[in-house]
Amino acid sequence: MSSTRHEVRSGAYYDSVILMQLQKALAGLPGVEDAGVVMATPANKELLAAAGFDAGAIEARADDLLLMVRAEDEEAAAAALAQVDELLARRRSRAASAAFRPRSLASAVQQLPESRWVLVSVPGRYAAGVAEEALAHGRHVFLYSDNVSLEDELRLKEKAREQGLLVMGPDCGTAIINGAGLGFANRVRRGSIGLIAASGTGLQAVTAGLHNRGAGISQAIGLGGRDLKEAIGGISALQALDLLARDPETESIVLISKPPAEKVAARLLAAARNSGKPVVASFQGYAPPARHLGNLHFSFGLADTVELALSLANAAPADRAAGSNTSAPYLRGLFSGGTLASEAVLALQPLVHPLYSNVGQGSSRQLADPLSSEAHTILDLGADTFTQGRLHPMLDNDLRLRRLRQEAADPEVGVILLDVVLGEGAHPDPAAELAPAIAEARAGRSDLEIVAILLGTGEDPQGLDGQREKLAGAGAAVYPTTGAAVDHVLRYLPEGKDGDNGFPPLPLEDFRGQLAAINVGLESFFDSLDTQGAKAVHVEWQPPAGGNEKLMSLLAKMKGSP
Amino acid sequence: MSSTRHEVRSGAYYDSVILMQLQKALAGLPGVEDAGVVMATPANKELLAAAGFDAGAIEARADDLLLMVRAEDEEAAAAALAQVDELLARRRSRAASAAFRPRSLASAVQQLPESRWVLVSVPGRYAAGVAEEALAHGRHVFLYSDNVSLEDELRLKEKAREQGLLVMGPDCGTAIINGAGLGFANRVRRGSIGLIAASGTGLQAVTAGLHNRGAGISQAIGLGGRDLKEAIGGISALQALDLLARDPETESIVLISKPPAEKVAARLLAAARNSGKPVVASFQGYAPPARHLGNLHFSFGLADTVELALSLANAAPADRAAGSNTSAPYLRGLFSGGTLASEAVLALQPLVHPLYSNVGQGSSRQLADPLSSEAHTILDLGADTFTQGRLHPMLDNDLRLRRLRQEAADPEVGVILLDVVLGEGAHPDPAAELAPAIAEARAGRSDLEIVAILLGTGEDPQGLDGQREKLAGAGAAVYPTTGAAVDHVLRYLPEGKDGDNGFPPLPLEDFRGQLAAINVGLESFFDSLDTQGAKAVHVEWQPPAGGNEKLMSLLAKMKGSP
Repeated sequence: MSSTRHEVRSGAYYDSVILMQLQKALAGLPGVEDAGVVMATPANKELLAAAGFDAGAIEARADDLLLMVRAEDEEAAAAALAQVDELLARRRSRAASAAFRPRSLASAVQQLPESRWVLVSVPGRYAAGVAEEALAHGRHVFLYSDNVSLEDELRLKEKAREQGLLVMGPDCGTAIINGAGLGFANRVRRGSIGLIAASGTGLQAVTAGLHNRGAGISQAIGLGGRDLKEAIGGISALQALDLLARDPETESIVLISKPPAEKVAARLLAAARNSGKPVVASFQGYAPPARHLGNLHFSFGLADTVELALSLANAAPADRAAGSNTSAPYLRGLFSGGTLASEAVLALQPLVHPLYSNVGQGSSRQLADPLSSEAHTILDLGADTFTQGRLHPMLDNDLRLRRLRQEAADPEVGVILLDVVLGEGAHPDPAAELAPAIAEARAGRSDLEIVAILLGTGEDPQGLDGQREKLAGAGAAVYPTTGAAVDHVLRYLPEGKDGDNGFPPLPLEDFRGQLAAINVGLESFFDSLDTQGAKAVHVEWQPPAGGNEKLMSLLAKMKGSP
Repeated sequence: MSSTRHEVRSGAYYDSVILMQLQKALAGLPGVEDAGVVMATPANKELLAAAGFDAGAIEARADDLLLMVRAEDEEAAAAALAQVDELLARRRSRAASAAFRPRSLASAVQQLPESRWVLVSVPGRYAAGVAEEALAHGRHVFLYSDNVSLEDELRLKEKAREQGLLVMGPDCGTAIINGAGLGFANRVRRGSIGLIAASGTGLQAVTAGLHNRGAGISQAIGLGGRDLKEAIGGISALQALDLLARDPETESIVLISKPPAEKVAARLLAAARNSGKPVVASFQGYAPPARHLGNLHFSFGLADTVELALSLANAAPADRAAGSNTSAPYLRGLFSGGTLASEAVLALQPLVHPLYSNVGQGSSRQLADPLSSEAHTILDLGADTFTQGRLHPMLDNDLRLRRLRQEAADPEVGVILLDVVLGEGAHPDPAAELAPAIAEARAGRSDLEIVAILLGTGEDPQGLDGQREKLAGAGAAVYPTTGAAVDHVLRYLPEGKDGDNGFPPLPLEDFRGQLAAINVGLESFFDSLDTQGAKAVHVEWQPPAGGNEKLMSLLAKMKGSP
């Protein structure tokens, strides 16, 4: 009959690597069947229970260390627990045999003045404090720790941005800066693809996939999982995108994230468009607006992201011919095909605001009155409202011609988007009716751009070429797909304010040369930097006041008071 | 000063083509500035107002015909309205000059007994009745009309399915049956790609795009926009998919729709998987589960659908090696990478039910207790719950090894899915710890399949090949991507009931040879069939009781009473 014994060590701090090693060492002692060594959080007590340790009745708080041993008899269990101090001491002596190690960030900075980066992986409740100290020393921060509050994240990132510094994280698992992996990172060759990711494993999967297919990485910048939420507003993502847009070694960019908040997506995609480099956006679980819109490409799934990035890595720079950008700010889309209208809404919604429509899809707003447009509007004229006792607009152009004149008379309208659908059953010559109306609208408004999606085949009774010529002859820009037409529209709409936001840019030189970094937290991250040939210093960090919460709060009060 | 006059014709029925032609004829008369000819629905009165006709005060009901003319003076306006009867008569005489035309569906069927198809485009409130009559005559129905109730749609489709008949629509704009376009359809060459679409313009854009790129179409089957809603359950889509799966002329299949209801998507995608043919699913505005899962491929946007279908059209048949399909029904996924866990959830959720997880993404259900799995479960062991005061599972395998044993001991578990993430900072040899546990689990359970996603590069310190060999040597199926691993999982999970549902299949011969069809409604659809060389008969349809609602209701009561 086996016997279980436990021990509680109040307010003792050990880092998680030490706890894991201690647990393994205990489990390997003679007569021991299983061991558990954890900080006594409720979750960890439940995990102990699942492993057959009844920890429910043990009085131990979240910041207490709980050691449990199950052995073949009571003696073996007691003997195992009696060795805990010796096992810990053995670990300490190994650490002591290493080179001199600073016990504070300040002395680490003195020891490695060329360091530009600080890795922080201490427990969550201490992490913001260490990160703040690193920023005060003018260093970028790789913040691996989780359980950091959103308020702390915002404060750290705003502070960093003001100084031209970057905070990756919290809960940032992976980055590759100038070839050196921080945190968890695969070994990949250097190359021309720059990555920005709110997901550690996502970044690993794509960088590894690109390497395995022969491509290489310029920089891989982590953000932490919450950077693209509305509360943070993509502060780090926008800094990183600006950096990679300026970086001459980065020829194409990959963004990896869960779906960003709507407003953040709009700013991020606008910045990505303006980068002038091909950008692959991989937003997991997000309905992509199109396969591509100009230099923006949308992938789904990590494997697809690798394929798409590979196909773009060697592609020619995207065509960024600027439009006329008149002062008339709004787009009006007048569609006969419901699916084309929906497709236009989906493609425009992350980039154009506010967007109204009557198609009831995506995040566009419902148009209150289908008879009058508001701001940017996409209208499906084949919707039931318009076709009661009336022919479909593919057969009867009357309604659309009237609406075209109405929109062209609105001085706030800068672009009108139409579809023209050919084929059996449709109007025998739609361009003959639409072209004169287009020419008339443009004659009165030299600043009005008209864009047409022409859907048809060379066999269609209307004649594809003839229809295209009539529409183009009247001054419309004619495209065969919604995506191409929307890309043209976006080039002609006045761009939102963007770019220079008054904050200092991230210095490119901090991403050049041999990486020099200070590590505070998990020793394995220091080992990894060392192995990779980076200059690194490990701080022998201990929580303030030995992790004792009451004492910590007292210390904080004393620091705060004058 | 111009003058406006109007006329109301109570309960008069004209089809929409005649109304459009009358309006154009009136507008072209001497002195006339503009004309409006509409059924007096509230929406149409508002449209008249937008065109400058004040119709608000005119007493006219939705089934009254309202004629309005604005002319340079009162005489011209009056003269125009006085010509209405003559203009209508001119139209009638042209129609009368055509060949003998039946006035009922019954006599049309006698006139063209080989017809297998009836096109219905009468106004919505009459459409279900005509479609029902067509089904009673044993004909498939192409139902162009909109404004048909959901109840009527369900009744028609259930009735059709029992007879091995197909109802495309209501609100079905487009189909191509054996080369002949019904409704709005582009002229495209015949070929090996079969299409099924809940969107008319979507079907047009993809068929035209395929033709323009040199490919061809076997059949293009319309569904109407509501077939994939939960209320209808994809009745027509499943019939069409079954047909195309059997059709030897169809080598690959394209599905086009807005996102289907969850349950419908599950049935449809399961049927698509079982078709054994490459299938492209293009669900507009839907976050695709992956770029591909076995023979299922997901596109976004119509242009991308064309590209993907082209790339598959000549591809080798999909690999459909069956799994062992044990009686143990459930999958358990134990992940260290959060993004890989989310990706697995997204890929599995349309195909596997019920699916639980702790990743909080997609439509999977939240796992009540992370310590015990339910049904199909995907678990991110790197979630905050599991990492308080404990190393991340990429560094410490302890938690995962325990959970692996727990899952393997559950006789309801048939497949276990793991990820193994290599690289700097991660565990130095995860396979050395995982492989023995995998071998042990499989030794006890010959029916247990274990699948691993191995993420890494050949440069990683753990050695990619060595890790793969250890895992595979222990009996795990090892894949480099989530998509490939999930495809393997799906082959091993027992399949849901599917396929033979007791209803007669659609006869392939009805999709062969020269199309023979009866047209009830818009004459232009008859003209189009005629032009295309189909055998067609047009019914000179008039609404029952001349469109008078009271009389119609009386007639319906008389028919209904014994």
